[in-house]
Amino acid sequence: MEELDPFSVVADELSLIGNRIRIMVAVDEVPKLAAAAEYFFELGVEGKRLRPTVLLLMASALNGSLPGSVAANVSNELRRRQQLIAEITEMMHVATLLHDDVLDDADTRRGVPSVNYCMGNKLSVLAGDFLLSRALVALGSLNNTEIVILISTVLENLVTGEIMQMASTSEQRCSMDQYMKKTYNKTASLIANSCKSIALLAEQSNEVAVLCYDYGRNLGLAFQLTDDILDFTGTLASLGKPPLSDISHGIITAPILFAIEEFPQLRELVNKGFDDPVDVELALNYLGKSRGIQRATELAIEHANLAASAIESLPPSDDDNVRISRRALVNLTHIVITRTK
Amino acid sequence: MEELDPFSVVADELSLIGNRIRIMVAVDEVPKLAAAAEYFFELGVEGKRLRPTVLLLMASALNGSLPGSVAANVSNELRRRQQLIAEITEMMHVATLLHDDVLDDADTRRGVPSVNYCMGNKLSVLAGDFLLSRALVALGSLNNTEIVILISTVLENLVTGEIMQMASTSEQRCSMDQYMKKTYNKTASLIANSCKSIALLAEQSNEVAVLCYDYGRNLGLAFQLTDDILDFTGTLASLGKPPLSDISHGIITAPILFAIEEFPQLRELVNKGFDDPVDVELALNYLGKSRGIQRATELAIEHANLAASAIESLPPSDDDNVRISRRALVNLTHIVITRTK
Repeated sequence: MEELDPFSVVADELSLIGNRIRIMVAVDEVPKLAAAAEYFFELGVEGKRLRPTVLLLMASALNGSLPGSVAANVSNELRRRQQLIAEITEMMHVATLLHDDVLDDADTRRGVPSVNYCMGNKLSVLAGDFLLSRALVALGSLNNTEIVILISTVLENLVTGEIMQMASTSEQRCSMDQYMKKTYNKTASLIANSCKSIALLAEQSNEVAVLCYDYGRNLGLAFQLTDDILDFTGTLASLGKPPLSDISHGIITAPILFAIEEFPQLRELVNKGFDDPVDVELALNYLGKSRGIQRATELAIEHANLAASAIESLPPSDDDNVRISRRALVNLTHIVITRTK
Repeated sequence: MEELDPFSVVADELSLIGNRIRIMVAVDEVPKLAAAAEYFFELGVEGKRLRPTVLLLMASALNGSLPGSVAANVSNELRRRQQLIAEITEMMHVATLLHDDVLDDADTRRGVPSVNYCMGNKLSVLAGDFLLSRALVALGSLNNTEIVILISTVLENLVTGEIMQMASTSEQRCSMDQYMKKTYNKTASLIANSCKSIALLAEQSNEVAVLCYDYGRNLGLAFQLTDDILDFTGTLASLGKPPLSDISHGIITAPILFAIEEFPQLRELVNKGFDDPVDVELALNYLGKSRGIQRATELAIEHANLAASAIESLPPSDDDNVRISRRALVNLTHIVITRTK
């Protein structure tokens, strides 16, 4: 299988979608809100617009399998509606980033906040709400109740995931089951359900819709597991942000959870919280001696493989565009787990 | 017209709706979120659940005008859907209260925030998002795209209203037009569009839907104008909260805007902001000498009257229930402008 850059396959369409989002979120009266839009133009994997890329590729991976005559009639209108799912998904993603910023700041800044910090909170909440409202208006315009309910449930999952991250009992923080549920809610649900929406719009069979959901779910889980591993293995230079951000905020992820199985005394450190940097050092020592990173990596690979098999289980197609798109989706499962930032 | 307490007309149904909301927002895993639900049980006009009351009365004010045989068939299912609009509306209202709390706190607490304050921010954003997501899932279940778009637009208005309140140019803060637009966005849009949704569910004519919208819009404007007046004329004892909250936060409302027309020098104080309590005193002096409170009251009465005429313009009905409900809606227009808290 030759190398194929999934992002370049849909580059033109991505830039179209970026422009449409910019128009949708423009508020003449309030230039300050433009700050929110800046989020769309960040660098890194985010900047590559992973979610819209997946969704556009998924659209192409399915649409070609429509009977030719039907495809010709519906393609433009259908594609426009599928692009709208990509736009809605990206707006919801950025909305939750904005709201997460409020939360993270509130936790970490235990000292005196500046007025800017306060204005930041205010704008983050409003800008997030504003993006959500625009996304919902667009969602309504799709005129498809099943998708409205799917995407509303995603919003519920995103919030529940954030709430689970606040969970304070030791039981909850040390539970692998709780961690995976949280990861599904915070990261995988949005990709999974928007992939499913792409299939629903294309009036695919229920089996195909479930495969699309499975791809999104497993890609999302692999993505987040890798993110959580990179927080331990990356450097400021490679990540473009300080490593160890999770653990120093008391957020316990897969590598530590696996390490606890080998070194139960690690659990006491988790219970203490990681306010003291000495405790972070101690935990890293245990992690280094354990197979925590390796097992988390294996789990990420497992989910990446499940995502790839979902694509390979789609009904066969001779359409070149369909086959290129499917190969790009499979390549994405490798990219997501081998990235270094 | 004899006295008729609008709240008692729908008391049983209100309590049913309250219970349903409590069930919808219950999150077993996160007892902390229960704090959000507490909002539903506050005292005062809010505690009377103005919005659900209006919506249930509106439902009764219309449904009787369906042809008898149709009414018998659809009444239960229709009523359940209209109740859901009331539940959605109340959840959205409380969600924005929670998000407004984040904003207000951020502005007013210029000193050192406690850890509790930070946790408060975190929970307020999440609880608001959570309520919104539950409201949206319910909205989707109505399976009516026009209503999804109406209610999404309301969310957009609520956010835009909050953003307009942050507007910092002197021009904007001293504009009556801007004030009325903000008031529509922040308060009237939700009642107006949910009243309209009640009519749409009942498959009423476009004319009737517009009358319902007009009632909600004008009732909402009268309500907020009165709120803004009470902030000047009420006392801690009568309001149950400190008066002069708006002006001391630099929020300029109708009484001051009217007073500026008589005393243009007031505008300079507005431009300075009201960080200095001496400036608040000065502004109150001008206000006392002006007809600001009186003109704002006249404007509230004007909108209350417009709301009442919208109800009186509905197609005539002989149904007792319809007539009682319409009388209750008209009475509400009086109650809203004559309340003292």
